[in-house]
Amino acid sequence: MDRLDWSLCLVADTEAARGRWLPTLVEEAVGAGAGAVQLRAKTLDTKDFFELAGRLSIVLKPYSVPLIINDRLDIAMACGAQGVHLGQRDLPIRTARALLGPKKLIGCSVSSVDEAREAQSAGADYLGAGPIYFTSSKKDLPKILGTEGLRAIKSAVRLPVLAVGGINAARAGDVAAAGADGLAVISAVLGAEDVAAATKALLSAFHGQGLP
Amino acid sequence: MDRLDWSLCLVADTEAARGRWLPTLVEEAVGAGAGAVQLRAKTLDTKDFFELAGRLSIVLKPYSVPLIINDRLDIAMACGAQGVHLGQRDLPIRTARALLGPKKLIGCSVSSVDEAREAQSAGADYLGAGPIYFTSSKKDLPKILGTEGLRAIKSAVRLPVLAVGGINAARAGDVAAAGADGLAVISAVLGAEDVAAATKALLSAFHGQGLP
Repeated sequence: MDRLDWSLCLVADTEAARGRWLPTLVEEAVGAGAGAVQLRAKTLDTKDFFELAGRLSIVLKPYSVPLIINDRLDIAMACGAQGVHLGQRDLPIRTARALLGPKKLIGCSVSSVDEAREAQSAGADYLGAGPIYFTSSKKDLPKILGTEGLRAIKSAVRLPVLAVGGINAARAGDVAAAGADGLAVISAVLGAEDVAAATKALLSAFHGQGLP
Repeated sequence: MDRLDWSLCLVADTEAARGRWLPTLVEEAVGAGAGAVQLRAKTLDTKDFFELAGRLSIVLKPYSVPLIINDRLDIAMACGAQGVHLGQRDLPIRTARALLGPKKLIGCSVSSVDEAREAQSAGADYLGAGPIYFTSSKKDLPKILGTEGLRAIKSAVRLPVLAVGGINAARAGDVAAAGADGLAVISAVLGAEDVAAATKALLSAFHGQGLP
């Protein structure tokens, strides 16, 4: 895998596809510049999750964009994904690293400076910090960090930090200014009628080229 | 691991423990003669599932009884379990075998002769065949096999076949007569006030020593 571009990580949540075919949406987003894809499928059974992961793996191959599997290390290994994304209620990072080896990506969701430092020292490759803003995409939300919380986390670690939670094009500039290395979004892309246009708008706003 | 005794496999389903501490119940069953334990935790998050699996692994160590994890290959690998049990909606057997290697146990749930043959040719080590009788322990039940269906499956494969679904001490003799190599039970053990006594009663009945 070439050098990674974390500017926009699409969290491809099966529940956010609203009846559309997720691999098509993912390909549109990646074609428009999304540099990483995390597959999240909390309600699929293992067989369906595995088959969808395999499908996305094929879709992403020509783009040199990593496929990262949320939570399920077994599915990541089974489909040859480039990594896993672990929440605080998933497997410990060190356990995952022992099974995946040094070359796979391990991301970790953090919502405090302490969690960020712990994830870094356990061997995470990147962090998703949030929620920065209120979001309806996740239940049981920890408290909202705001851009100040994001800034504090970014200052505490040397890893890439992606801003998660309620991110949209209007806010992308603010999180960039607070030090985020990128955006992780679900509904800002998958909720859009035009997935490619939404992807481009997020990237433009994040890179300080203003809203379209 | 010594030669396996499949006579009684306790399916330790977290939802069947009814507020009691599952590792204690498992130890009582194993102390009374259960020869294998499958951990099934459909409603726990990954962290809790992993921690419970680690706890059971410690409990089982002195007994030389295999711990088999339902569905989650990642948890099986992370906790050093002796195997996984795969349903028809879980990872394919060949995929699991490639990740686990030749020494780990792979069990498979089957409900027809075709599924049994397919699981055997894919490399399963044992089969759970069912439901033999009606059971409330599982949703979305395939059609009931009865002892005739069990007999047909047993005749079609050379693997150990465990009878699953609605098994109790009164029925254990019938499934033994139909050729089962053992019983796989949830509520017949975990639903009992006295787990050790229930385990012994099932084993006696299965081995044709009559009901106590």
